[in-house]
Amino acid sequence: MGIVLEGGKIVTAVDSYCSDVRIEGEKVVSIGKSLKRPGDEVISVEGCYVLPGGIDTHTHFDLESGSIVTADNFGTGTKAALVGGTTTILDYATQNKGETLKEALKKQHKKSDGLCYCDYGFHMGITDWNDETCYEMKDMIEEGVTSFKLYMAYKNTLQVDDGVIFKALKRSKELKGIITFHCENGDIIEELINEAKSKGNKSPYYHPLTRPAQVEKEAIVRLLNIAEIVDVPVYIVHLSTREGLLSILDAKKRGIKVYAETCPQYLLLDDSFYGDKDSNSFEGAKYVMSPPLRKAYDNDALWKGVSSGEIMTIGTDHCSFNYKEQKEVGRDDFSKIPNGAPGVEHRIGLMYTYGVLKNRISMNEMVALTSTNAAKLFGLFPQKGTIAVGSDADIVVWSPDFSTSISAKNQMQNVDYTPYEGFEQHGRVIHAFLRGNKVIYSGKLIEDKPIGKYLHRKTR
Amino acid sequence: MGIVLEGGKIVTAVDSYCSDVRIEGEKVVSIGKSLKRPGDEVISVEGCYVLPGGIDTHTHFDLESGSIVTADNFGTGTKAALVGGTTTILDYATQNKGETLKEALKKQHKKSDGLCYCDYGFHMGITDWNDETCYEMKDMIEEGVTSFKLYMAYKNTLQVDDGVIFKALKRSKELKGIITFHCENGDIIEELINEAKSKGNKSPYYHPLTRPAQVEKEAIVRLLNIAEIVDVPVYIVHLSTREGLLSILDAKKRGIKVYAETCPQYLLLDDSFYGDKDSNSFEGAKYVMSPPLRKAYDNDALWKGVSSGEIMTIGTDHCSFNYKEQKEVGRDDFSKIPNGAPGVEHRIGLMYTYGVLKNRISMNEMVALTSTNAAKLFGLFPQKGTIAVGSDADIVVWSPDFSTSISAKNQMQNVDYTPYEGFEQHGRVIHAFLRGNKVIYSGKLIEDKPIGKYLHRKTR
Amino acid sequence: MGIVLEGGKIVTAVDSYCSDVRIEGEKVVSIGKSLKRPGDEVISVEGCYVLPGGIDTHTHFDLESGSIVTADNFGTGTKAALVGGTTTILDYATQNKGETLKEALKKQHKKSDGLCYCDYGFHMGITDWNDETCYEMKDMIEEGVTSFKLYMAYKNTLQVDDGVIFKALKRSKELKGIITFHCENGDIIEELINEAKSKGNKSPYYHPLTRPAQVEKEAIVRLLNIAEIVDVPVYIVHLSTREGLLSILDAKKRGIKVYAETCPQYLLLDDSFYGDKDSNSFEGAKYVMSPPLRKAYDNDALWKGVSSGEIMTIGTDHCSFNYKEQKEVGRDDFSKIPNGAPGVEHRIGLMYTYGVLKNRISMNEMVALTSTNAAKLFGLFPQKGTIAVGSDADIVVWSPDFSTSISAKNQMQNVDYTPYEGFEQHGRVIHAFLRGNKVIYSGKLIEDKPIGKYLHRKTR
Amino acid sequence: MGIVLEGGKIVTAVDSYCSDVRIEGEKVVSIGKSLKRPGDEVISVEGCYVLPGGIDTHTHFDLESGSIVTADNFGTGTKAALVGGTTTILDYATQNKGETLKEALKKQHKKSDGLCYCDYGFHMGITDWNDETCYEMKDMIEEGVTSFKLYMAYKNTLQVDDGVIFKALKRSKELKGIITFHCENGDIIEELINEAKSKGNKSPYYHPLTRPAQVEKEAIVRLLNIAEIVDVPVYIVHLSTREGLLSILDAKKRGIKVYAETCPQYLLLDDSFYGDKDSNSFEGAKYVMSPPLRKAYDNDALWKGVSSGEIMTIGTDHCSFNYKEQKEVGRDDFSKIPNGAPGVEHRIGLMYTYGVLKNRISMNEMVALTSTNAAKLFGLFPQKGTIAVGSDADIVVWSPDFSTSISAKNQMQNVDYTPYEGFEQHGRVIHAFLRGNKVIYSGKLIEDKPIGKYLHRKTR
Repeated sequence: MGIVLEGGKIVTAVDSYCSDVRIEGEKVVSIGKSLKRPGDEVISVEGCYVLPGGIDTHTHFDLESGSIVTADNFGTGTKAALVGGTTTILDYATQNKGETLKEALKKQHKKSDGLCYCDYGFHMGITDWNDETCYEMKDMIEEGVTSFKLYMAYKNTLQVDDGVIFKALKRSKELKGIITFHCENGDIIEELINEAKSKGNKSPYYHPLTRPAQVEKEAIVRLLNIAEIVDVPVYIVHLSTREGLLSILDAKKRGIKVYAETCPQYLLLDDSFYGDKDSNSFEGAKYVMSPPLRKAYDNDALWKGVSSGEIMTIGTDHCSFNYKEQKEVGRDDFSKIPNGAPGVEHRIGLMYTYGVLKNRISMNEMVALTSTNAAKLFGLFPQKGTIAVGSDADIVVWSPDFSTSISAKNQMQNVDYTPYEGFEQHGRVIHAFLRGNKVIYSGKLIEDKPIGKYLHRKTR
Repeated sequence: MGIVLEGGKIVTAVDSYCSDVRIEGEKVVSIGKSLKRPGDEVISVEGCYVLPGGIDTHTHFDLESGSIVTADNFGTGTKAALVGGTTTILDYATQNKGETLKEALKKQHKKSDGLCYCDYGFHMGITDWNDETCYEMKDMIEEGVTSFKLYMAYKNTLQVDDGVIFKALKRSKELKGIITFHCENGDIIEELINEAKSKGNKSPYYHPLTRPAQVEKEAIVRLLNIAEIVDVPVYIVHLSTREGLLSILDAKKRGIKVYAETCPQYLLLDDSFYGDKDSNSFEGAKYVMSPPLRKAYDNDALWKGVSSGEIMTIGTDHCSFNYKEQKEVGRDDFSKIPNGAPGVEHRIGLMYTYGVLKNRISMNEMVALTSTNAAKLFGLFPQKGTIAVGSDADIVVWSPDFSTSISAKNQMQNVDYTPYEGFEQHGRVIHAFLRGNKVIYSGKLIEDKPIGKYLHRKTR
Repeated sequence: MGIVLEGGKIVTAVDSYCSDVRIEGEKVVSIGKSLKRPGDEVISVEGCYVLPGGIDTHTHFDLESGSIVTADNFGTGTKAALVGGTTTILDYATQNKGETLKEALKKQHKKSDGLCYCDYGFHMGITDWNDETCYEMKDMIEEGVTSFKLYMAYKNTLQVDDGVIFKALKRSKELKGIITFHCENGDIIEELINEAKSKGNKSPYYHPLTRPAQVEKEAIVRLLNIAEIVDVPVYIVHLSTREGLLSILDAKKRGIKVYAETCPQYLLLDDSFYGDKDSNSFEGAKYVMSPPLRKAYDNDALWKGVSSGEIMTIGTDHCSFNYKEQKEVGRDDFSKIPNGAPGVEHRIGLMYTYGVLKNRISMNEMVALTSTNAAKLFGLFPQKGTIAVGSDADIVVWSPDFSTSISAKNQMQNVDYTPYEGFEQHGRVIHAFLRGNKVIYSGKLIEDKPIGKYLHRKTR
Repeated sequence: MGIVLEGGKIVTAVDSYCSDVRIEGEKVVSIGKSLKRPGDEVISVEGCYVLPGGIDTHTHFDLESGSIVTADNFGTGTKAALVGGTTTILDYATQNKGETLKEALKKQHKKSDGLCYCDYGFHMGITDWNDETCYEMKDMIEEGVTSFKLYMAYKNTLQVDDGVIFKALKRSKELKGIITFHCENGDIIEELINEAKSKGNKSPYYHPLTRPAQVEKEAIVRLLNIAEIVDVPVYIVHLSTREGLLSILDAKKRGIKVYAETCPQYLLLDDSFYGDKDSNSFEGAKYVMSPPLRKAYDNDALWKGVSSGEIMTIGTDHCSFNYKEQKEVGRDDFSKIPNGAPGVEHRIGLMYTYGVLKNRISMNEMVALTSTNAAKLFGLFPQKGTIAVGSDADIVVWSPDFSTSISAKNQMQNVDYTPYEGFEQHGRVIHAFLRGNKVIYSGKLIEDKPIGKYLHRKTR
């Protein structure tokens, strides 16, 4: 008793072809014509693309920023993911100062286990290196947490110094894990924020001015120089600048292995959203995230990086705070606005609409960017990230004949705004399967119960 | 009545998975388990890789160099290709001075049609631009010749000037064709050869010294600057130097689209094969090809380019002349030695042995480099270059449990030496199918008749 | 019986100090206080700068462009030079096709000897390389012509190919001469001009569009790659683009020795002078020179190159054609407009006004750029290019307390326009001495007779 | 009653000419022939170069490293300076943690005032930034300390973080001071040292291995990125690596102003001096300095930087500890060896012998590198750094007809070894004048009394 998807166009990172596909249990079992067996359910997907389920490399559900908790928890967040064509999310567990990695992982499991509607895994954020951390990194890998995160920004809270970066990279090399990096120079940002505030410059307009492109670039270059010493690949999250990308290309030329992720907001939005210098509007707060939105030429450069394959993955850095009450905490001081914006729901729709339909990327490239590369980099391939015999039947049926206007009014995300308000989206998820289970059917989320599983990931 | 390959591991440019595959007629029709239908032949391929047939982007069969004709014609050359796992070759038709492109194409068809054991297509070499050439380029594309070649070397014979490069690129952009380039500065080479000969330096030892790395680099940089003006992608054949590769990376950083091909000889052999300065040996003549073999650090750099995906394709530049009688024409003057060496037979074996088994590339990357990328670049995908439902059943079953020593004694190539004499090869083709036809079975070439077809290629 | 300049501020490429200077015969004999001896003439230069006489590295007096001869000959040109503070000019002798270098030099002497009001030397333009040219280069050096010029533009007339560049550089290295290069890719320019004209685009507006920045950059990069092979320093004339400058810096980083000259027009004027696309005005013809005027960002980049010392010399490429009758020859076809513009008279005034007074360069740097570096590069130092005991008393007394508006109405140049019409100039030459001879006194040119001498220059 | 130096060859950063020079009081008053006045002392300097007194940009006299004090104090150090042709030294005052800059300056004056045999000034090392430091920087400038130093190495002692670098650069920009930087990444060095020691690797052999070239490069790149944000020139002390130099050139290309200093040890010595891995010798301790000695290719690259003018100054980082008893403190642990080596005495001799006589630099360039550029950068020009009317008569008469072997046995430096033991030196100081005072005559130091004055330097 399987399911046969009939008449669609299967797209993987390399192939595009018309064929049926048959699911049995949790797996894809055959691809071809006339696959139906007795008892099978046949679903016609004619005119649709049949894609591997998306993998969002970067979410923050149920995250505390000071006393404020994100609007989306693992339940609402993973429902929004599914609706948007994402069947796997990788969220960040983060060590607090004084905490062990194991404690941090335990807390994250507590927040998520039993609540998720899509499959999920964790990266582990290390913020307080001590003598045990080396050993704990091994424990994490045994727990299926094979990727880590270090912050070069957020001085005095999350930020680590170059010595920790060096030690962690050496250890990650031994363990065949990978470290993901938030690249901004936190020391300089702190000075710029202090400077702005001392001049009374406290509106959201000043948020990007206190985190200029050069602080991202500096951190990237520094990281890659350290990675060169250790001789180990690194992964850069939410790349936002042209200069950062060019620095990555320079490093690649020297033989350094570096994988870059960007997010739809850095491709599609720019710093004009922060408003005018003298405006009283607080709308800009919706876009207060770090790194901040950049210039149009940064958008262009990142699109080129995406087109050329130099940027490997599209994550969202989904981290949703309500504009009302939550963002408003920083009304009188932009540095107090909780950082982040929602996006897990619109990732694939935006990449299809502004990437594929604008001829910036092919359908194959969209699949690579939103699913396959992530699976390969983060130890999930070939279980996830492709449509092939033996892989998990995480399948998204994408109907191109559809168009809508993105709005907070019609979103699944549990937050009172979207940074893409009014953006056109073409195409949508008509059906989706998670390990062979129907999770979306005829465009409708099947909310029965959260069947998402924790993914014990492999090393590289 | 199809064929089922049972129990193998299918490898494409992105996927690797255990599955059977069923061929019907010329096509792959299904992939999965239990595919056998009544009347099907089942071939067990357990323990083997099931790969898309290889595509050699660069051969010269039945080529005249002055009065000397290559040792391999389209018959012997394509047989050697098959034995080596290559089911498609792209050869070069070349306009002679005073000739039209149509005449050149016709001659090439005459040389090949009805003789080929694998499928084949042609690039068209333009050497004599005139007012008609613009129109003829369109004619070529209509004939399925969607790629061209310009030579920046071989002054007074094949070489074109920058004005022709510029015009041809503009035209190719309009037509959505692609131009492949031999990048060496022929003017400077001529001076260096004259200089060497005037000093009495006439042994093969001087061949590489008169074509130093910088003349390749100069031509590449020049080409990419011209491509930038025209804003059109270009393809560089037989990249041989570290400096050339770095120049390509610089250009990519500026947004120029450039695809690079290298050959096994530039990865595995170096200029020590030209012998000592004072030796009387003529053995070096076997390696007289252009560009010449380079330094060990060039090998290393090119391997890195191959590993990182910066180099897209592996061709062979197969152009075989017998050492006896043919190469010997230049015994007293290296500049008279017919340029070229054989290789079409050993391409995939070498990439498997020295690439995959040395952990420089994955099996997926080997497939991409030796087949998929070529198909995508040269208008053959998805007919060729992948194993997917609906694609041509050009399938190579690669047995890893085999090892041999490469030698002129055991080769299919119709030439009296191989530059890889004594090199280990692991793995070999056990079975191969060309559009569903068995062409190799149990390691034996089925020579009944030349069933290779001319490939009418698409534009990009 | 000497001359004592009393009370001025002496400025050399490195020093600035208040001191008197005493001239005896053709030479500076002492510097200090209380230098007056019986019979000396004392000239008070209080409040003035005392500068080494300027050296213009690049003039074309009495040059034929087709049937048209420049408006300035060696008489009027050198008078204008003196008025502008230039006491030495280096003009270009140019071999015609079929001519020997000796014949070309002889003709140039005939045009200039006995007519010059300032000292002068020649570079030799080689346009027709033959078996004798190697030997002739040595002859030239014995004649004091220690620098050469090769053109990478002007296809079929002046342009040489890369083989000639290579040969000439090798020879120049042996002879310790230096070659100056006009860097534009003439092949591509020809195509662009043909293309423009075939579309009916024939107004001066199209002149810069047929010689885009990339053709300069391409030629510079190519030249520097060839120079790297030969391992010899080169000199690039009239650098006009940001991209060209950046390419020079890249080459320097690789260890290539390259000296760059720019001209005031590339620092101060931009392509807006060519007018609008649809205008009927022919005013743009005044600015038809090659390379053409560029963008404002090129101006900025070149100023930075001048400030940082990466650009070594300021020449003018003075080549004056009257707007009336001469430029008008190309009224219906920009490619027929004789190329060039006047400038020898305003070089130092412009560098003082827009360089020194705008704080882009110091007075020392102005002296280096307009005199000292040229003397060192072209075999004239320390005879020329400095104020030091034993050097030629080529001294310019520059009065800063003066300002005028540059205009064709008040110029010495024998041409009916100036590209700097309406530009402010601060400062002027109040007195000038050529080898101890008063040639300007109280702002007035002493026209008695042309005392300029041919300079037999040294090698490097 | 003056002094006339008769018959020498005056060399400045730009000029070389034969002339007499007359000194009156502390100043040069005239240059020329027949300068003698009644009562003048005439000293024949025929056959000698007459050079501006050298300026050593980087010394550490009377410095405490933990409980150990350098072997040279301001008395012995400045005597050695004079003997070596250096008439001005710039030493480093350094703030201790908890100390004000004023206190640090006061202490440095106490150590030096009244003891110095040559003129001297101070840079101020800032190691403990607090709210007052901004104001204190202004105080320093008023005290004539117009240059500062920040350390990117020496974690937990001298090292400052990027925030301090940023703040200090902003302040220095306002004040028109300049900051000099020790560029090595101290965080990573600490990890490498800990790692080495934990493996029992404690001999001097491991000193360079714990401070690899990449940590210098990383710090340089980071610094220049920060300088780019602030838009202010910076000065890099003791540049030691090829990679560092290339990074500086990259930054210059982007328009960043950066001045680099190197030292004779980084041009002439390499890491072979640290001995073999398994040797028991402690000789390597003599070369324990930071940055450490590098590879031969670093030497070569730095010589090219010196030749091309990309490196502006030659300092010594003179910091002498006796091998016996002082260096020996670290016999069992290289990280306890006091860092530094002597050199103030041999700077000009080495640059003459290995720079000028090896044709790497001209005499003019030697003067620029060892004197003029330092004077211009550090607010001493034209008082120091040139031979011109009105400048201080700091004059070194350099006799080329002399050669010796450098040895601890014949040095003036008060330390028991020299890193240049056995190096040939050609030429020496035969006479020297400090502000018109004879301080060396006929090769003999006139030790009567320490007449060196503190130099109140200007801003830039």
